[in-house]
Amino acid sequence: MKLIIANKNYSTWSLRGWLALRAFDVDFDEVELPLFTEEFYAEIAKYSDAAKVPVLVDGDIAVWDSLAICEYVNDAYLSGRAWPESLANRAKARAISAEMHSGFMALRNEMPMNIRGRRKVSLSQDCLNDIARIDDIWASQMKEFGDKGGWLFGDYSIADVMYAPVILRFITYGVTLSAEAQRYANHALQSAALQQWIEESKKDTSIVSEDEAGVEVA
Amino acid sequence: MKLIIANKNYSTWSLRGWLALRAFDVDFDEVELPLFTEEFYAEIAKYSDAAKVPVLVDGDIAVWDSLAICEYVNDAYLSGRAWPESLANRAKARAISAEMHSGFMALRNEMPMNIRGRRKVSLSQDCLNDIARIDDIWASQMKEFGDKGGWLFGDYSIADVMYAPVILRFITYGVTLSAEAQRYANHALQSAALQQWIEESKKDTSIVSEDEAGVEVA
Repeated sequence: MKLIIANKNYSTWSLRGWLALRAFDVDFDEVELPLFTEEFYAEIAKYSDAAKVPVLVDGDIAVWDSLAICEYVNDAYLSGRAWPESLANRAKARAISAEMHSGFMALRNEMPMNIRGRRKVSLSQDCLNDIARIDDIWASQMKEFGDKGGWLFGDYSIADVMYAPVILRFITYGVTLSAEAQRYANHALQSAALQQWIEESKKDTSIVSEDEAGVEVA
Repeated sequence: MKLIIANKNYSTWSLRGWLALRAFDVDFDEVELPLFTEEFYAEIAKYSDAAKVPVLVDGDIAVWDSLAICEYVNDAYLSGRAWPESLANRAKARAISAEMHSGFMALRNEMPMNIRGRRKVSLSQDCLNDIARIDDIWASQMKEFGDKGGWLFGDYSIADVMYAPVILRFITYGVTLSAEAQRYANHALQSAALQQWIEESKKDTSIVSEDEAGVEVA
């Protein structure tokens, strides 16, 4: 089984696909393609008509889109344990994950992931609203599960996969969170899987956008 | 169990949540809130902190986001039959559904659903690319399943739920599809569930945007 991803410093969706495997100790090989290059478009076309990363290739099956990859891994390799066990928590975890998957557009546009960067930018009200909503979600889950495992639903789940890149964005852009939400971010940052991704992201020093090249580190 | 939705003429995500129940013959009550009104924001806050439709309320469980609602209904009421049976087709159906859930932004921005409208607008290259990609998905699935049930994966699945509003958009904006893709659209349009939604959408004559009020019907 192999996972096609892009630059670890920048590609949030790649991180999600990668965590769906790595954080659950499922074995896989990874293929990293450099974003915005001819090589990227030539190679990704071999794996996916949607032409986006990540793509998981498992024998004859190719799954594109990070949430679909999470569901596939859960289905094919984890006997369903990547979602919370109770119907109510499973429903809530899927809603929280879907909200991230389809939304928070202002945050995604104004705070692109750049793990090694430290930047100050002025944020729109929409982006501040996105941050407040995410803070609420994390803090609310910590009130219930902070002492019962420390992940959004106690044990690690796909909901934690979906929000991992946001934790890294909040560091890059110096976002101040509520104490409960910060507790969640700290817990996630200490995990072996996320630490491994961060370390590996440092090995690639390529700069993929003029934006980043121009706005070096506050 | 009740589903909170918005104006049937306009709200694509409401249609998806509604089809997840109606097309699988799951009983529910519906609560329709008028978009962009004070009533909408006052009422939706009772059901969801995300403040968006649709929301499914099932006893103590509130599920927001249409894809999460699909997964919940599949999980709680349909014993998994809302996705294709084989692992490979289930993976593909989830990828196609997730692609719709998180993507096709140009299409969603430039061709808002307006079931009763007939409009001519000039479309960006990004939007034309979105249309071509959707045509490819439908046509490719029809080659495999057109004679085996007529839905994207033969039997009706969540993938059909996710693309239903796109079929209605293509009618409103007069989009020409390939023969295979049009075959899929025609099949879906004849279904009792989608016909019911279309009929019910005609009962509400409110106009929710200046855009629509200004651009009446080509």
